[in-house]
Amino acid sequence: MADPHEVERCDAARNRALLLDAAAMLVAERGADAVTMDAVAAKAGVGKGTVFRRFGSRSGLMQALLDHTETELQHAFMFGPPPLGPGADPVDRLVAYGRARLSMVEVQGDVLRAVETAPELRFGGPARNVGLTHTVTLLTAADTHGDLRLLAISLLAPLEASLVLHQVRSLHIPIDRIADSWEDLVRRVTRAP
Amino acid sequence: MADPHEVERCDAARNRALLLDAAAMLVAERGADAVTMDAVAAKAGVGKGTVFRRFGSRSGLMQALLDHTETELQHAFMFGPPPLGPGADPVDRLVAYGRARLSMVEVQGDVLRAVETAPELRFGGPARNVGLTHTVTLLTAADTHGDLRLLAISLLAPLEASLVLHQVRSLHIPIDRIADSWEDLVRRVTRAP
Repeated sequence: MADPHEVERCDAARNRALLLDAAAMLVAERGADAVTMDAVAAKAGVGKGTVFRRFGSRSGLMQALLDHTETELQHAFMFGPPPLGPGADPVDRLVAYGRARLSMVEVQGDVLRAVETAPELRFGGPARNVGLTHTVTLLTAADTHGDLRLLAISLLAPLEASLVLHQVRSLHIPIDRIADSWEDLVRRVTRAP
Repeated sequence: MADPHEVERCDAARNRALLLDAAAMLVAERGADAVTMDAVAAKAGVGKGTVFRRFGSRSGLMQALLDHTETELQHAFMFGPPPLGPGADPVDRLVAYGRARLSMVEVQGDVLRAVETAPELRFGGPARNVGLTHTVTLLTAADTHGDLRLLAISLLAPLEASLVLHQVRSLHIPIDRIADSWEDLVRRVTRAP
């Protein structure tokens, strides 16, 4: 017989994933502003109370939605196919990582903007640390020398959502041009002296 | 005889500079939180009404204080002595510019944090555009090829105040190490292939 606590935990996880999928669909269909607790409850076919119990507030829901995307990206670079995943040249992997982050910003842009985050959270969150460590690992594998932690911070700075959204929306720079420019930056930085 | 309007304009400018100096001294002595309209008025020896008439609000005063520092930096790289000013090698000038920006963040950090700015203002302000143009000019002079506008945006991204303050205050990274790392980045990017 299944442990009832185990069943409960599974139900909770399934419930949570269901609500996050509903929220992600709402963002895709009508933008982040359309994501209210009511709309998510209606979309997922549950009561509003369930959404509040699960996420606390709209801001909590938005944060969870971002974590969900970050987790998918982490999974892709740790276990997915190359060039993002293991097996490709480290510089190509780094380029693929940057491109993946940029397309994430494009898709999640409204969510990112909707979440009010303190600088501590914006720069110090666990997702960011995983990205930094991944970048340092790839720079090391590419035989790049120097103060790699700070170099990684500098390389990831241009991928920050608010800056990318400013370029896309206010300066009308196509996301592909931003990605190409970032690839150029990475190749310059990692090429042998 | 002096034009009375001219005299009035000069008085206004002097008055404004006096108030900004008083505010800057307060920041240096006691941090940005100590900069209230009352404190600035007291420090400059004028009535509180004068400070409100000149800057509208505390946030307006803070913005003016930042503009004042940006103007000084612009003056230094346009007309000042090398390596920041004209006459030095373009890469050395770019390195000097980054170091000047970083020390500005260190001094003005509390002010930067105290000003509530929208991303449009943070990334799209006139001061930022001057800095970008200056960077593109130096990259061109250094015979660097590519999408220089976007490369300049990427190079300046790690100098953004909120990121630098996070590194200094939360990660306890010395500002000199950040400056050295930025110099390394610039030299990698600009070196011939």
